[in-house]
Order: sequence, then C-alpha cells, then structure tokens
Amino acid sequence: MSKLHIFDTTLRDGEQVPGCQLKSEEKLEVAFRLESLGVDIIEAGFPVSSPEDFKSVALVSRHIKESTICGLSRAVEEDITVAANALKGAVNPRIHTGIGTSEFHVKYKLNTTNEDIINRGAHAVKFARNLVSEVEFYAEDAGRTDNEFLARVVESAIDAGASIINIPDTTGYCLPEQFAEKIAFLVNNVPNIDKAILSTHCHNDLGLATANSIAGVMAGARQVECTINGIGERAGNTSLEEVVMIINQHQHINLTHNIDTTQITSVSKTVSSMMNMPVQPNKAIVGSNAFSHSSGIHQDGVIKKRETYEIIDPASVGATGSEIILTARSGKAALNYHAKKLGYELDPEGLKIAYKEFLEVADQVKKVGSIHLHKIFKTIKAYA
Amino acid sequence: MSKLHIFDTTLRDGEQVPGCQLKSEEKLEVAFRLESLGVDIIEAGFPVSSPEDFKSVALVSRHIKESTICGLSRAVEEDITVAANALKGAVNPRIHTGIGTSEFHVKYKLNTTNEDIINRGAHAVKFARNLVSEVEFYAEDAGRTDNEFLARVVESAIDAGASIINIPDTTGYCLPEQFAEKIAFLVNNVPNIDKAILSTHCHNDLGLATANSIAGVMAGARQVECTINGIGERAGNTSLEEVVMIINQHQHINLTHNIDTTQITSVSKTVSSMMNMPVQPNKAIVGSNAFSHSSGIHQDGVIKKRETYEIIDPASVGATGSEIILTARSGKAALNYHAKKLGYELDPEGLKIAYKEFLEVADQVKKVGSIHLHKIFKTIKAYA
Repeated sequence: MSKLHIFDTTLRDGEQVPGCQLKSEEKLEVAFRLESLGVDIIEAGFPVSSPEDFKSVALVSRHIKESTICGLSRAVEEDITVAANALKGAVNPRIHTGIGTSEFHVKYKLNTTNEDIINRGAHAVKFARNLVSEVEFYAEDAGRTDNEFLARVVESAIDAGASIINIPDTTGYCLPEQFAEKIAFLVNNVPNIDKAILSTHCHNDLGLATANSIAGVMAGARQVECTINGIGERAGNTSLEEVVMIINQHQHINLTHNIDTTQITSVSKTVSSMMNMPVQPNKAIVGSNAFSHSSGIHQDGVIKKRETYEIIDPASVGATGSEIILTARSGKAALNYHAKKLGYELDPEGLKIAYKEFLEVADQVKKVGSIHLHKIFKTIKAYA
Repeated sequence: MSKLHIFDTTLRDGEQVPGCQLKSEEKLEVAFRLESLGVDIIEAGFPVSSPEDFKSVALVSRHIKESTICGLSRAVEEDITVAANALKGAVNPRIHTGIGTSEFHVKYKLNTTNEDIINRGAHAVKFARNLVSEVEFYAEDAGRTDNEFLARVVESAIDAGASIINIPDTTGYCLPEQFAEKIAFLVNNVPNIDKAILSTHCHNDLGLATANSIAGVMAGARQVECTINGIGERAGNTSLEEVVMIINQHQHINLTHNIDTTQITSVSKTVSSMMNMPVQPNKAIVGSNAFSHSSGIHQDGVIKKRETYEIIDPASVGATGSEIILTARSGKAALNYHAKKLGYELDPEGLKIAYKEFLEVADQVKKVGSIHLHKIFKTIKAYA
C-alpha cells in the first residue's frame, strides 16, 4: 500500500483566520499535539508575515523532531530567506513557495504574463533549494487555472528542484470530478511528474473541500493539506479528521497514513479552545452530536446493533460512546433501554403506559433526564 | 433546463436532534420562512412520534399554501393513518413512508427477509395512496443496500403508486462516485423509473453529504433532501445552502431551482437561534467567516479584484460584503485600504513605517481596530 502524507496547516492557514492568532508558545503547544497525532508535515507559519510568526516557526523548528516543519513564502527572495532562517533549527525543514497561476492572479493580481509566472516560480524554487533541501511549490488558484498552462508551470518547478507540488483549489471552486480530472491531467501530462509528490489543498467555500481532496487522492495525489476541524481562511480548509476517517472507512482506496485516530477528539478540542473556533454540534467526526442518536427509529436500530446507524466506532476517534438521548422524537425501544439502565423492568403493558406519560413530559422539555424518568417509572411500578 | 426540487427536512430530520425540538407555533414560524425561501417540499414532522408533533404538522398544513407539506411515517398502517390525518388541511400533502433495505436493517433491525421487505414497502405505499395522492417512498440505508435488490424494491414501490423515490445514505457511508453509481444503476435498471422522481437524502458522517447529493443529481436525481445549516441526526444532513450555491456556481450542471438565495443568510440565522444549533464560523456559505479575508496575500488580491479569492458575491446570499480584517497576518495593501477608509493618504515611505508599527500592535492583539489605526496613522502624518 502506498502512503498518504498528511500535511497539517492548522498553524498557518488556520492561524491566519481572524481571532485565531497564537503566540509562539501556544503554537508550540499545538505543534506537539500534531506531532503526537502523527502528522507528517506541520506548516508552522508564514515567517515573513510578522516578527511573532517568525519567532513561532523558529521555536517549533527547534522542538519538533518527528514531523517535517514547513514555512510558507511567496515567490520572493526576501520571503524565502526569512523562511529559511526561521527553519534553521529544524531536523526536517521544508520551504513552501509559489505563485498565482490562474488568469485572475496572473492578470489582475500580479499584472504580468504566463511566461513571467513560469520564470518567477522556477527562480523561487531554485533560490529556496540553495537554502534547504526540501522545497514544495504551490500554484495558487490552480483550481481555476487552465490545465495545459498548469502542467507547464509544474514541469518547470520540478525541473528547478521542487519535490512536492501543491495544487490548491484556493477559492473552493471545483467539483470533485473537476479536481480529479486536474490531478489526473498532471499525472498524465507532466513529463517529470515521477520526481515529485502531488498535493491537494482544498478550500471549503461550497462545502466540497473533503470530497475534492479525496477525489484528488484517488486520481494520484499522495499528500493532503488539511487542518484540525477544517479551520482556515473563509469557510476553511479540508478537515484532517474527515480525510483520515474516509481512508480508514474505504479500504479500497488502498492507502496507509500515519495518524493515530484515537487522538482526534482530544486534538480537536485543544485547537478549538486555544484558537477560539467553536466546532458546530453537527460537524462530522468531531461535533458534539456526531455520535448522538435521538429519533426513535434510529435509537431502536442502534440498540439492536450499533452498525445499523453508525459507521464509525466512537472509540476509534477517542470519543465517548454513542449516546441514546431521550426527546419527544424517541421511541419505546429507547425508553426501555433507559429503564433497564436505571434498574426498572417493564412488561409490554407497563412500557406502553410509561411511553405515553414520557411523551407528555417530552413535549414540554427538550431532553428528558433521569429525574423525570424515575418519576414516570415509579408510577408504572405501582401499576404492575 | 430541468428543475431540481428542493425538499427541506429541517423540521423533521433537523428537529429530531437533541435540543432542537420546536413547539408547533415555532415550527410554523420556520415553515413560513422556508416557504418564502422557495422550498418546494417542507417535511414538517413525524406525526405519530408525539402529540405535539402531530399538532405541528397539522398547523403547518393549514397555513402553508405554496410548498408541498410532507409527513414522515414508517411502513406501518397506524403511522400512515396518523400522518394522513395530520396533513388533512394541506393544499399539497405528501406522505413519506418506507422501510430499511440494507442487510443491517433487514437482518438485525427488522429480523426478516428481502421478500417481506418488498411486500411491506409496496403495501405501505398502496395504503398511503388511498389517503393522499402523492406518496414518496424511502429505502432506508439505501447507501449500504445491494443495488440489484434496491432496484427490485424501487420498482415495486413505483408499481404500488409512489411517484418520488428517496435513496438515503442513512449512515453517511458512500463516496460520491459510489452514490452516483447507485443512482445511475437505478436510472438504468428500474423498468418503470420514468414514472418517479429520484431523490437524494445524504448524511454527513464523513463530511461528504453535499458532494454525494451533487453526485446523485448529476447521475439523474431530481430532488435533494436537505436542511438549513446542514443540521440533522448525528453529523447532520446535506446543507440546503451548499447545494443551491453549487447549482448556481456550476451552470454546466444545467438545472434550475426555486430558491431565492438572497434569503439564505437570514433563514440560516433564524434556524440557528430558534433551534439552538450554533453555526461554526468556518461553515460554507453561512458561517460568520465565510466572506472574511485576513491573510495579507488574500487581502491584496481581493482589494485589486474581488473574484481573485471569492467565487460567491456575499450579496447573492444576503450576507454583508466581504470583510478585510486586520491581523498580524495582514499585509501592506490591507493596511493602506483601511487607511484610505479612515481618511489618511500615505506615501510609500509612510506606509512602510505604519506597517512596521501596525505589526507590533497586531502581534499583541488579535484584531486591530480603528482606535489602534488612528493612533498609528496620526504618528505617520506627523512624519510626513
């Protein structure tokens, strides 16, 4: 089985979000958690952006030994030099440099020509390779870049010495089939593609970041750039937890990864609280309701056999067990389950009466707790 | 162009979530908003589940005139009768009935045979068709159901009188290509499929609900079941807002819909607050950060041309304009943009000095506001 490299950019693309900024000591704390989680590459920051971020990348570089430490830069010599300086203490340093390649970027943002983009990209890679041995090149807004031109940019960056090529869907524009087609086009049309690993970097503006990343991987990418809880610029990035659990769930994708999934819930909580980014209850894998069952139909099924309504064992991501919560949408099976847990044995007639009383309470309160239940079951016992 | 029917189940699959229960008057309030939004079918509840939910469906049925009102039921005569009674006042009533079809459901939950499932499904549809003219059939856990068997179940339900066939990925298991293959299989192998509309109902356990729904639509489904903000059992359902904006963004899908997208932000806020379900800042389309730009690279691009980093015009979903927020990851372009907005004209040298001072402040505070800016710019003016 071939290996999927997990590149976490929580500390760069995640950290640049309003309200998420971390001090260098806090960045180091998160980096230790990511290293323990098994992340292959930690993008620790954008060193030229501010003195504090330089300090952060330098601090993380000195302390993290297992994961590669990556620093971002534009295709500008000053950025690259500063990034290399920040990465000096790292065991495995990587510079991530690149330039915009879509018409929006070439014409409107950079106001230049396609040939100039190719030259500036290649020059940045060469310049970076003189400072560190591992260079990743990004073709910004690759999602909206013409595939023929993108292939030329990529070929030139690999020739210049980049061993990882990042294909970002910067604006979260692509459909999964389009993104897969792009990756497949590069695999089939870039002559020196065997000298590099292709990477996905998908944004979630249309809710498709995870699907696009998986589509890219199935088309040949071997690195996924993602963040914990999917935080990041605008609607965020691909969620690390979703990608990893899809790879585990769908064995036919036939890839291994280095993530210890049992740490996912705990890392998710740490990042959410340190970076002030709440996770909604209905977030996949790490939401507080991700393993809660409340409708009667579902509860009945889960009580009979967990897999009826649950494809992921909560323990596999370090979450506490599935919850059977009692509300007005719960059924008799769930009520009986709770009765047993509280030590009551109800016969079918007793359960029927209890259920009727339960529904009256449940229509009044959002969640029926033990105090209500004891009251109901005690009345029934008197009937029995 | 063919029409995509939007079936909203915020008031049924969304409302059954712990803490989300609504009183009947509250359900009606949400239903009015969904009708105004342009939802084709409102699933208003599961009438047999509790007296209050029966009341809710009846109330919604009496007041909503434009949208079809749908009530859920199991393939059980009592459920169906109660649903029909609740729907009595509706201009366009629909009963949604069905049964589990995957091995997990047939063997472990229902403890029966495939033939019995087919018979019970067909019987339920016929029974419902005697009470209302429009019946939708669901094949629960269709996502994990063998396609050959599923095709037989679907054929039999259509024969019995169902005009909409719902193919739920109940556990959120499928990859987009698998879900598309399933829909395509039904389109190609169910002899009477032209007599019904195929519907997707995808759950988000692996973060793929939206991608699976779109894949299903591209394979031939013409109804999508979804909720506002993607709320629903466990990790939730497909987000209405994501599906609609993908259809708008990708014109080659070649479908129309009836949603007035400018109401999306406001409906999202109403549902979130009434149902106690916070929306995370990095939620696509409706998250508070969905149109915020904070990194220097992005801000520079957006200031030059909005489309560089933004595929959706915030106004098209009723959101306030893109925000250029100043943090330690912002660049000179964003600072200059704010300077102009505050009435300061800086020359290149002044901007350089201001930016250095700005970064020192920004490394200390998470977000740099007007008070800080005035202080910085005033010092610079003195220099000029």
